[in-house]
Amino acid sequence: MKITEEERDAVYKTIFSRRDVRSEFKSDPVPDDILKRILKAAHHSPSVGFMQPWDFIVVKEQETKQRIKTAFQTAHAEAALMFDKEKRGKYKSFKLEGILEAPVGICVTCDRDRHGPVVIGRTALPEMDLFSSVCAVQNIWLAARAENLGVGWVSILHNEELRKILNIPEKIVPIAYLCMGYVSFFHKKPELEEAGWLIREDLEKVIHYGAWDPSKK
Amino acid sequence: MKITEEERDAVYKTIFSRRDVRSEFKSDPVPDDILKRILKAAHHSPSVGFMQPWDFIVVKEQETKQRIKTAFQTAHAEAALMFDKEKRGKYKSFKLEGILEAPVGICVTCDRDRHGPVVIGRTALPEMDLFSSVCAVQNIWLAARAENLGVGWVSILHNEELRKILNIPEKIVPIAYLCMGYVSFFHKKPELEEAGWLIREDLEKVIHYGAWDPSKK
Repeated sequence: MKITEEERDAVYKTIFSRRDVRSEFKSDPVPDDILKRILKAAHHSPSVGFMQPWDFIVVKEQETKQRIKTAFQTAHAEAALMFDKEKRGKYKSFKLEGILEAPVGICVTCDRDRHGPVVIGRTALPEMDLFSSVCAVQNIWLAARAENLGVGWVSILHNEELRKILNIPEKIVPIAYLCMGYVSFFHKKPELEEAGWLIREDLEKVIHYGAWDPSKK
Repeated sequence: MKITEEERDAVYKTIFSRRDVRSEFKSDPVPDDILKRILKAAHHSPSVGFMQPWDFIVVKEQETKQRIKTAFQTAHAEAALMFDKEKRGKYKSFKLEGILEAPVGICVTCDRDRHGPVVIGRTALPEMDLFSSVCAVQNIWLAARAENLGVGWVSILHNEELRKILNIPEKIVPIAYLCMGYVSFFHKKPELEEAGWLIREDLEKVIHYGAWDPSKK
């Protein structure tokens, strides 16, 4: 099946305009058919040995979101103490999640025992199943952007807390907690770039030819 | 920036027609400007704390590919012994890589020390930097598909071997070795699904509402 130039450009437009959204969520609900399309796209991510190790927990209940927000606040306070004093103030000034404001939360998980114990392609690299679930996260992010929905990945959370709140069994690994919803706008650049926290690396500096090139670093 | 319905459909078309390619690579070279576009898309993947931990090693030299192929063969022989006797024959019959045939190899890595040691969003979940590099893999896969290029992820490789062959420093983690090139055709379904190795899970069975639902499993 051939992809036309127009279609290719649409994919690039989506990739380059995707953002990690924290502050711009609107309360408008996400229609179920659109949510299902996005999760279908996630379910068609690459997975090692076709094991499809993912599950998707959809969270719309405000009480559940409040418990996740509390877990975030604990992890965020711990994290602030890890930064040098000079960076700590700036760190604390960033809004890093939209857990309560986003109408939908999605927890993506990985079932390491699915179709196991021996899985094609996971023999030398046992982490490949976790990586498959991460590919599903990226498919969600891009499919959502294509639906003009914003997504934010909240990683300042302890997995044990997420397990407790969402009743996730011990053997299932939480991979990502995503906030999703319509947005007032998408930032032109990543917010940490806009804020001067870090700059975008020069593309040529991250490409090596033939083998690792120490002169690039 | 608004994505139109036509653009959205192009993204879904790309997501659903993406395949893990092993057998259909053609020898036609991948033009440098196209390769650069794909790597630029990878460089615009989400990364935790905007750390952009990835590097991309482009491999076109046949001698290097041959060494990677040999490393694959070792890991593949080890893996075969892990399968039950009844599955081993079938496992060995699958072609699982196109290392020598694909004109381009790309090794995606993760530099865990980049902009560290404390990185926004990596405090509670130290694996977030590895996951960022995996998102870059998925962007490569989709951008390549949008360029009508096939990609295969070769995970039956030991990282120590890849480090030796590509001179990757000890502190840099190899995340993926990808084969890329034009293809004679894209399979309609994943090859392991076509071969009856595993079936596609019912989408409804991997979606949970509100919390983990044990009745789904």
